[in-house]
This record gives sequence, C-alpha cells and structure tokens, in this order.
Amino acid sequence: MKIRPISGFPEWLPHERLVEQQVIETARQQFELYGFRPIETRAVEPIDRLAHQGSTDKEIYVLRRIHDRPEESDDARLGLHFDLTVPFARYTLEHRGHLTFPFKRYQIQKVWRGERPQEGRYREFYQADIDVIGQDELPLLFDAEMPLLLHGVMSRLPVPTVRIHVGHRKLLEGFLRGLGIDDIAPVLRILDKLPKIGAKATGEMLTEIGLDPAAVAKSLELAKLQGDGDTVATAVEALGVVHPLLEQGVAELREIMDGAVHLPTGAVVADLGIARGLDYYTGAVFEGFMPDMPALGAVCSGGRYDNLASDAGSIRLPGVGVSIGITRLLGPLFRRQRLAISRQTPTCVLVALDREETRSRSRSVAAMLRARGIPTEVFHAPLKYGKQIRYADKLGIPFVWFPGEDEGHGELRDIRTGVQTPADPAAWMPEANDLHPRVHLVDGAPA
Amino acid sequence: MKIRPISGFPEWLPHERLVEQQVIETARQQFELYGFRPIETRAVEPIDRLAHQGSTDKEIYVLRRIHDRPEESDDARLGLHFDLTVPFARYTLEHRGHLTFPFKRYQIQKVWRGERPQEGRYREFYQADIDVIGQDELPLLFDAEMPLLLHGVMSRLPVPTVRIHVGHRKLLEGFLRGLGIDDIAPVLRILDKLPKIGAKATGEMLTEIGLDPAAVAKSLELAKLQGDGDTVATAVEALGVVHPLLEQGVAELREIMDGAVHLPTGAVVADLGIARGLDYYTGAVFEGFMPDMPALGAVCSGGRYDNLASDAGSIRLPGVGVSIGITRLLGPLFRRQRLAISRQTPTCVLVALDREETRSRSRSVAAMLRARGIPTEVFHAPLKYGKQIRYADKLGIPFVWFPGEDEGHGELRDIRTGVQTPADPAAWMPEANDLHPRVHLVDGAPA
Repeated sequence: MKIRPISGFPEWLPHERLVEQQVIETARQQFELYGFRPIETRAVEPIDRLAHQGSTDKEIYVLRRIHDRPEESDDARLGLHFDLTVPFARYTLEHRGHLTFPFKRYQIQKVWRGERPQEGRYREFYQADIDVIGQDELPLLFDAEMPLLLHGVMSRLPVPTVRIHVGHRKLLEGFLRGLGIDDIAPVLRILDKLPKIGAKATGEMLTEIGLDPAAVAKSLELAKLQGDGDTVATAVEALGVVHPLLEQGVAELREIMDGAVHLPTGAVVADLGIARGLDYYTGAVFEGFMPDMPALGAVCSGGRYDNLASDAGSIRLPGVGVSIGITRLLGPLFRRQRLAISRQTPTCVLVALDREETRSRSRSVAAMLRARGIPTEVFHAPLKYGKQIRYADKLGIPFVWFPGEDEGHGELRDIRTGVQTPADPAAWMPEANDLHPRVHLVDGAPA
Repeated sequence: MKIRPISGFPEWLPHERLVEQQVIETARQQFELYGFRPIETRAVEPIDRLAHQGSTDKEIYVLRRIHDRPEESDDARLGLHFDLTVPFARYTLEHRGHLTFPFKRYQIQKVWRGERPQEGRYREFYQADIDVIGQDELPLLFDAEMPLLLHGVMSRLPVPTVRIHVGHRKLLEGFLRGLGIDDIAPVLRILDKLPKIGAKATGEMLTEIGLDPAAVAKSLELAKLQGDGDTVATAVEALGVVHPLLEQGVAELREIMDGAVHLPTGAVVADLGIARGLDYYTGAVFEGFMPDMPALGAVCSGGRYDNLASDAGSIRLPGVGVSIGITRLLGPLFRRQRLAISRQTPTCVLVALDREETRSRSRSVAAMLRARGIPTEVFHAPLKYGKQIRYADKLGIPFVWFPGEDEGHGELRDIRTGVQTPADPAAWMPEANDLHPRVHLVDGAPA
C-alpha cells in the first residue's frame, strides 16, 4: 500500500508536536487565568445545522458508515464541524440548564474543512476559541478583556510579535449613517478591501454604488485612521460627522482601548479599517497581525455579536469572543524553520548501561530521578559508551548519567560541554532551563 | 432545528472536562517522565489502509465532501481512524528517515467507530497509547517497562485501583506445544473465554476441537494460574510440561515481573488466563482491571508484537505498547457521579465590583493576582455583594476579594468558612490545594 501525505492534513514530527503542545498549554493557562472554563464538543454535528450556519466556502465533510444499513440512515446526516462556533452555540443551548451565565468558555480542538488546499489553508487544523455569553445582556467589560487576553497569550508564545487591531462596527455604521447612507452592508464590504486594493480602487467602488464624492472621501479618511484611543477619537471628531450611533461607537472603542493602556505601546491599536466581512458582528471587532509576517493575514480574530444562536427561542444570548488559528500560526513557522527547540524529546537524562548485570543499578538511578520529576530513560543495551552518548546527542538529551559501582555514586556528563562530574541520583536537579525542552523563535526572512 | 444528544458521542459539562483534562495531563506527564515522545496523526487515513487492518466489528466512518466533484474523488477514499495503531504504523513508515530508534512515542487522541452504541461503548472516544518500536530487534526491557508505566499512570488518576495482569503468548503456546497440540490459535481463542464462560464450558469446547482429557485438564489448570512471578513459575513447572518455547516464555514473564517487585503487592500480577484474542501479539500481553468495577472489563491493554507494519518491506519493526481507554474509564465514573471536583471553574478568586467608578481598582487587584498565576475573575456588574457571592458559590470559587478604598488594602473572604480577613493583592497566595480545582474519587456502589 502506497504511503504518502494527504494534502491539507498537516502532520508534525515529534519535536514539532512538542512545540505545538507547549503553545496549546500556554493558551490554556492564560484562558484559565482569566476564569474561562474548558469544554470540548463532539467532532460531528447534524448536517442541517452545519449547512444552515456555514457559508458555502467552508466545505463540509459528511460522514457515512462503511457498512451502511438503510435503517440507520441517521448517521448519513452527520458532518465534521468546520469551526468551533456552530458546535458551541448548539452546546450552550443543549446544556443551558447546567451552565452559569455569563458563561466564559474556552475550547481548543481540531476542525475540518474540505477546501482546496493552498499555502496557509488546511483541511484539518487546530483552533483555540474563547467566548463569553450572557443571557439577554452582556456588559462591555468583557469586550475590553479580549485584547488583554489575546495579548496575554500571543506575547507568551514563541512567535513573532502580534499586534491586536480593534475596530468597531457601531462606529463605522454610525459614521456612514451620519453621512446620510442607509444601506450600510455593501459599503462595509467595500471598505474591508481597502488594505488589499488601495484607496483609489476602493473609492471607485464606493462611487459606483452611489456614494457622492464627499461621502467617498470621508469614508476613506475614516477607514485609514489608526492609533491609540484618544488619537483616533479626536481624528473622528475632526471629520465633523454627527450621529448618536457614532457617538456610542466612539465611547465603546475608547473604553476598550482604555483597558489596554498599561500594555506596551502599539500592542493594541484602534484601527477603523477593520470592518470584518461577516454580518455577524455588531460591536467591537478584533484582528491580530504579525508585522513580521504580513502575508499570513490575521492569525487571530473575533468580535462582539448580538446573539449566539438564532434558534434559541425567546432568549437572546449576546456574546463576545476571539479565535486563535494555532495550526495557521505554527504551520508557516515550522515550514520556515523559525521555531527551534532545545531538544527533540522530553528526556532530560539518559542513564547509561554498563553491562547486563548492572541493569538494576541503572534502573534504580532512573527511578530516583523520575521521583523528582526529571524525565529519564535507561539506555536499552550495554553498547559502547560512545554509542550511548551518540543516541543522546542525536535527540539532544543534555545529560548522560554513568552509574558507579556503589549506589548513590556516579558521574554525570553534560554532553553539550563534555564536562563530567560526580553526582548523587538522590539529590541532583538540573537547572530549571534544562528540565523540559524550551522553544525559541529563530530569526528568518519576513514573509 | 431540534437539538438533541447524538448516541455514542459523549459530551461533558465544563467541570467534567476539567477532570478529563487533568487525567490526560497526568498521563502525559508520566509518559514524558519515561522519555516517550509525543505525536498526533491526522484524523483520516485512506480507506484501503483502514479496511485492510481493521476487523469487521470496527465500523469505519467514511468521509465525503458535501459538494463532491468527480475530479476530486480522492477524498471519497478517506475514513476516520478507529484506533491509534493503524495511523501510528503508517506514520512510522512515512517519517522513518526522521525518527530515532528505538522510537518511544505517546499519542492521546480521539478515535471513531460506527458501532452500535451501548453501555461502555462509544462512537467517539479518547485513547492514550504508548509504544516502543525497534528496527529489527527490541530488547525485553521495554516490555518490563510497560506495567511500571501503566501503574505509574493509573495509580495517579482519581479512579478506583487498577490491577495490571500480565500474561505471555510464548508461555501459553510453548505449553500447548509441549502437550502435543499443533494448531494453537483456536485453543487460545477458547481459553480466552475462561473467565466469562467458566471451566466446564471451556473444557467442553476444548474437547470438541479434539484435545484429549489430560490436555484439557492441564490447559485449564494453566489458564487459572495467577500470582507473583515466582509462584506462577513454580506452579507451571509443577504441571510437568516441557518445551523450549515454554521455558523462554517463563523466563521472559519472570523478567517482566521482577521489574515490578518494588510496586505495592498485587499491583501487577502474572495471570496465565490473559491470552488476548488478537493474533497480533507474540510475547507479553497486558490487561488492567478495576476490581471495584469488574463489569467495565479491561480499561487498559496491550502487549508485544513482532512487526508494527506488514508493508514495511525488508525492515522488521518489532514493538511493545499499551493503550488506556480514557473515555471508557471516565464515562462510567461520570455517570455514577464518582468523580468529584473541588470547584466547577479554574477561577480561584472572584474580585467583587463595588460600583462602576471603582472598576479600575477591581481590575488592578485581578491583574496583580494573575501576575502570580492565580486564576481570577472580576465580577461583571456592581450588583449587591450578596449576588456576587452567590455567583462565586454557584461555581464553587473559594475566595471573594473586596477591594478597599486605597490600593493594596482590601478584604478577602473564604466563602466556605465565611471568614473575612485583610489581605494584600501584591502578596497573598492561596494554599497550594486551593490554587487549582482538585479531583477526588467518591465512594459508590461497585459495578
């Protein structure tokens, strides 16, 4: 049987998986630090739910059993989830009676999309989502928490700096209404293209759908505004447009930006060019970019929405959330060899094996080290020490332990320096930096 | 759209997911302590690979894209993996050039089987697998490591005590050959039923396939042997059967049992009734049972095999491994409410909100606590303190912080005792037991 990779289904080597695990663990710790509760949803949803809420470009994988029997046609109607929002909405409705609101949840799982694979697009990939859902209402403070949390996660990951851009749908809509425009959605969709197609082409498209020259000019000026909360608010005011929704949008954007003032300058920027194509969002919108790798586009994004689920009956479930594209972030960095790890395995110490008769001594050294949480392997055969050291070297295991004739005596070699010293297996600890593999970002060509 | 659970696809509430996460994290830490390297494989494999290696009772879910186009019929030939062994074998062959052997890997992922759901059977479930794979040969010491590692994981989980049973295929086969039996496989399959159908029925079946009364009697006596390594070896010898393969099997079993002598008595037992139905295994076989919940059957199992993949060409890849059924273990314990968790959320401290004007003070207390790794939430609205405390109580959050008028002064209430004391947000730490939710096993009716 021929073995080959399947396009769009990435698979990592063990040392890359170590990196991915650390990234996921960092996200998990930050989410929990803010009190988010974990859930996982089943990988499948009924097809009608997926097809109803999915846009056509998110191709759904449908499941059928290999020996399908007509009387079990239920199965024929399951599909793999293509995001974590549709299953989260269903989960929240299904388990509502057991949840406490505001419900802060995080969810880190793989999703599947049958899209045509291309650079940066995957058919199977990890997403890390957080959302806060209220019943009937949800205070703005949760919106303000999102950029903090995104910055908290992204700044702790071994990836190029991520800058969080904050836009606001109410502000944009209020501004356009203040200009006398009623049909907002097409204008937002065109403005969303500004960074890609430039001011000239955007202006022409706005003129085409009927905006007068003054409105085109003001819309373009607005969409170009970027900076801290005060700067942007002042610049909006200077454009001289007045509308109650605009005022509310500016106030909300300022409150969100105020919440981030203690972060490093430029970590979070107000950016009125961020409109986000989805009609879904109704307030703040967030996108995170890596200035070092602009071609990657947004590596995290989200926003405020009025209602999590359209089929919740009389209950309204407003929410705010963001999603981090773990695979989308790591895949290109792996491919460019920009993530280095200090070793290829969890093992910190390789205990050498002198001869078969002393195996129990090697084992007992390993047991003593493990008892203090030090990942340890015993070499599997009494080969020449040179071969045993070569095995450690190949995997980047930093230490080789040579048990002595008496228990409790032995020598430890740091194979990076070649320095060998007497050591006691009941007491020795590696430096904190050496206990587990460490990941760091390597300089590389921007992309 | 009607919302309902899908039979066989379990989903946990947030506090149950907290438990599952801790269980997975414990397994991961133990695996890494022994130097196992992590991998994840894609969820899909080509259908012909799955169908080739799967038995008919592991119903495969086949994938098809919702808008399938004939020119992309490749996709029609993918299915979800039903275990982690088939994908691991393919992964090892595919990436062989990048792996270091012996390759010790662990893999914790969901698998899918389209079986008819029933108690203890799931269609989507977590497995935690470890295997060590050699090239051409693999020392016996890795077999001896498996019971240690299984005990290491299971004894650290908040589940009823698990006893590891060790059998040996070579020992059984050698014994039967010594009795003059040539066609071994059918005899092993019948002996495997002994615990279920009893000695009388087993004996009748053995007679039916042509064993003489003496051979039936000896086979049944052998299959009933259980105990420590010495006891079982002596008892086998007393049966007076001689065969070189039997001798080798006894020696290997003893070596494995010797490796476990420092564990508590009864943690690992030699059990010649463990044959395991699969033809796959060629040496030691392992099964773990909970004496407290016998109806659950084996919650972990594995063994030694001669070759990981039949399509590896001229290379032989012998291995030994075990698999822990995470969902199979947790599902029944959740259903019987036997796993209690000290709170329903990661949050350790809820910072109360006095009034809108003091929100920044509450936020700054939260930021100081988070900076020291204490999971903290700020209550979202300036409601009466009674309501804020009720929210904490509902989720089991142990501490509520009331910020004072000056920064650095405030009061902390332990809501379990009602005791309230002055506390400094820059210095206070909870007891280690309170920092994160703790899981413990609750007594319950055996099942």
